[in-house]
Amino acid sequence: MQSNQHYHLDFLKSAFSYDNPYYSVAEVKKWIATQNRKVEVNIRKIPFSALNDWDFYDDHLALRHESGKFFSIDGIRVNTNWGSRQEWEQPIINQPEVGLLGFITREINGILHFLMQAKIEPGNVNFVQLSPTLQATKSNYSRVHRGKTPAFLEYFINASPDQVLVDQLQSEQGARFLKKRNRNIIIKIQDEIEVPDNFIWLTLAQVKALMREDNLVNMDTRTVIAGIPFGEYEPEVTGFFNFLNRNREVDSIPARMLQSLLTSQNALHSFDGILQFVTRLKTQYELKVEKLPLNQLDGWQIGEAEIYHRERKFFRIIAVEVLIGNREVQSWTQPMIEPAQEGLCVFIAKEINGLLHFAVQAKLECGNFDIIEFAPTVQCLTGNYRNEKSMKTLPFLDYVLTVQPEQVIYDTLQSEEGGRFYREQNRNMIILAGDEISQKLPSNYIWMTLHQLQTFIKFNNYINIQARSLLSAINFN
Amino acid sequence: MQSNQHYHLDFLKSAFSYDNPYYSVAEVKKWIATQNRKVEVNIRKIPFSALNDWDFYDDHLALRHESGKFFSIDGIRVNTNWGSRQEWEQPIINQPEVGLLGFITREINGILHFLMQAKIEPGNVNFVQLSPTLQATKSNYSRVHRGKTPAFLEYFINASPDQVLVDQLQSEQGARFLKKRNRNIIIKIQDEIEVPDNFIWLTLAQVKALMREDNLVNMDTRTVIAGIPFGEYEPEVTGFFNFLNRNREVDSIPARMLQSLLTSQNALHSFDGILQFVTRLKTQYELKVEKLPLNQLDGWQIGEAEIYHRERKFFRIIAVEVLIGNREVQSWTQPMIEPAQEGLCVFIAKEINGLLHFAVQAKLECGNFDIIEFAPTVQCLTGNYRNEKSMKTLPFLDYVLTVQPEQVIYDTLQSEEGGRFYREQNRNMIILAGDEISQKLPSNYIWMTLHQLQTFIKFNNYINIQARSLLSAINFN
Repeated sequence: MQSNQHYHLDFLKSAFSYDNPYYSVAEVKKWIATQNRKVEVNIRKIPFSALNDWDFYDDHLALRHESGKFFSIDGIRVNTNWGSRQEWEQPIINQPEVGLLGFITREINGILHFLMQAKIEPGNVNFVQLSPTLQATKSNYSRVHRGKTPAFLEYFINASPDQVLVDQLQSEQGARFLKKRNRNIIIKIQDEIEVPDNFIWLTLAQVKALMREDNLVNMDTRTVIAGIPFGEYEPEVTGFFNFLNRNREVDSIPARMLQSLLTSQNALHSFDGILQFVTRLKTQYELKVEKLPLNQLDGWQIGEAEIYHRERKFFRIIAVEVLIGNREVQSWTQPMIEPAQEGLCVFIAKEINGLLHFAVQAKLECGNFDIIEFAPTVQCLTGNYRNEKSMKTLPFLDYVLTVQPEQVIYDTLQSEEGGRFYREQNRNMIILAGDEISQKLPSNYIWMTLHQLQTFIKFNNYINIQARSLLSAINFN
Repeated sequence: MQSNQHYHLDFLKSAFSYDNPYYSVAEVKKWIATQNRKVEVNIRKIPFSALNDWDFYDDHLALRHESGKFFSIDGIRVNTNWGSRQEWEQPIINQPEVGLLGFITREINGILHFLMQAKIEPGNVNFVQLSPTLQATKSNYSRVHRGKTPAFLEYFINASPDQVLVDQLQSEQGARFLKKRNRNIIIKIQDEIEVPDNFIWLTLAQVKALMREDNLVNMDTRTVIAGIPFGEYEPEVTGFFNFLNRNREVDSIPARMLQSLLTSQNALHSFDGILQFVTRLKTQYELKVEKLPLNQLDGWQIGEAEIYHRERKFFRIIAVEVLIGNREVQSWTQPMIEPAQEGLCVFIAKEINGLLHFAVQAKLECGNFDIIEFAPTVQCLTGNYRNEKSMKTLPFLDYVLTVQPEQVIYDTLQSEEGGRFYREQNRNMIILAGDEISQKLPSNYIWMTLHQLQTFIKFNNYINIQARSLLSAINFN
């Protein structure tokens, strides 16, 4: 498959390099602001009855497009023996098609650059965010919407195996999507190509620097970036690593992150041991999901312009009309999900056996493809976490909300996918803990090195999208 | 997890050792014959109307037990864009519960021994076959059938994490089971335990030797054995490997198998490359399965005593009455699957870059949990392969059926799971090919080392049960 034998090192170098002949990070920020000013965006909430081609079909079994394509909002009843709430009903996004999230990369001055798109999504807090080169649903690229073909699609369709650096199936939010997966793909091209003015070449280090800002790098970029393999202590990588460490403090946080990324030697648990841990949980816990009509969901109400929980919790389904300047279709209507409040996703890391480990939560969510996925240490998305009950019952939440600022090594607001979620942003944090966090974890948590997390990412449906979003932001320089 | 750091080496030593203080391989065969004589077994085909507690419920939606437990025979309609037959209907076994297949192991004279059970299953060709220590459905061990608790269950329920050497979820036959998985588990105990007289301690080498005979080692044993991890060229394993090679021809077939098992250096494809290959197929091919009532399946007929295909192809569902001496329940009735003919499963291996590689087929089967699994080079189970059309259209079939005998390094008949399948045995073959097999494979085939296959086995639903059955038989001494 891989004629490009050095792709691990190529990725690693790009993660260290700001050597971009066109744009510095500061200039990219200005460029995004310019892109934002250049387009006209108008998003307006409308009643369901004003949706074009969308309706409550089959006696409210689903809110869907008349073509049967795109996605639908279904109702489900969930039964499980996981957690304290073992039976509930809710709306969920059903989108069985595998979407494509793809980057074109190219070496510029010997450093791999990623072709980013300044893409407008209706739900984005900042309308324009940096997205992958191509971001397309199957409906999208098979042109159900009768718009023009997305730019650069043919590069991915025609890519030869030796151009492909990464090709993975990755899950979306398990509490909102029913078993949804996307294809995350990175290809490398040799020749220079012409690039429209809403596209930009960036190094991986630059992308990671932009993730330190609120809502500039979209979720689709973050999930693809998270899947990049950097290899292990191979001879060529070790040489590079030693070179780096001669030029910086070896006990700096980025250096320790890189060490945790490249080896699992002295890891607390063996890889087989972690697989045993997740097998045990997958056999112990059951997840049963049945479809129900939307107007029969316990606790949920269909209004004229929203499907909402009676206690105004979790999220609501709304309908919007979108008017956008530089998208392939200029105007359309669609349902979206609007969260009831801001969420919180946190990884707690800690040095164990001289190696940084992350406290990983095994979590059952109703839309999971395979019952359990690995999630961040703290993940609060569907309920208001700022209340006394959550503080008392959710492991580590109290610690996270009262942690010393100097222990917080990453803290930004990041958006969920703006094509489905209306202005949903979640606080993303990474905390470097000391002795105040015990090595002993609650029963569904386990310590892993970055190297182990990165290995699991290669396989389908092990690491959830919130965990991947956090991992994508970790930088090594 | 692993307090037992040396389990790779322990497994490897057991795979090489015939040092059993109780039984030689020849004595085990006699012992199985004795076990067979000791029990009375009577299996009788009966009409569906004579089944106790089983019936066609919900207007023929399924043939199931009145408790809703055990399994049911459902009807499905399959739609896919894979292969030449893209739409069909068929009955399938639906058993959503995760079964448990477990071995207790213990060191005897420093060598790991596996506690095998001489177990009678109604469908077995030889009634008694060597099964894992414990083989239980959830209904089984939660005692839905009101029998006594299976022997040794408590060892698995109470096993501490550091006793667990292997714990994996593995798939069953994708053409017969709907997304069925079993938990494959191996635990190690320290203390001597009392063993009933239908149990026996064997080394891994002995189990593998017994797989060279027809129908002595059951499918459940083979799948658990296939998942055993032997590690890589770790220092301790390398020492053992060098010791072995001083005492035998390094270019013997077992030595070359061991080399292919312990390293992927010089492998034709990188591991990431193989993952890209399977991701591409999983996104390219679609699999849609809908339930249909059994009496509406196109091409299928429900008779008094069988559900059969009108052309007498594939398999039929029958009902049997079972009378058995040494099982936890003495007499019962149940549906079973009877195949229309014997099947054929073959791996073709070939030396590439100085390392043995296996030609692995990516295959879509209707009951697959995740669309595609890796299968043997040739897998014919559901149709009669001995006809001109199959010989012409199925890759490698013609080669396999006319291959020179000296190239066949493994050739036995092995049974499918005798609790569901009535006297189903399939021919299992491994062929060592030379230049007559090209390095270039058809588009859904890929060369892998044993090391790569063994790595995929650790993860859920990558290697199908037929491939695992073949891999379990490979010996290294």
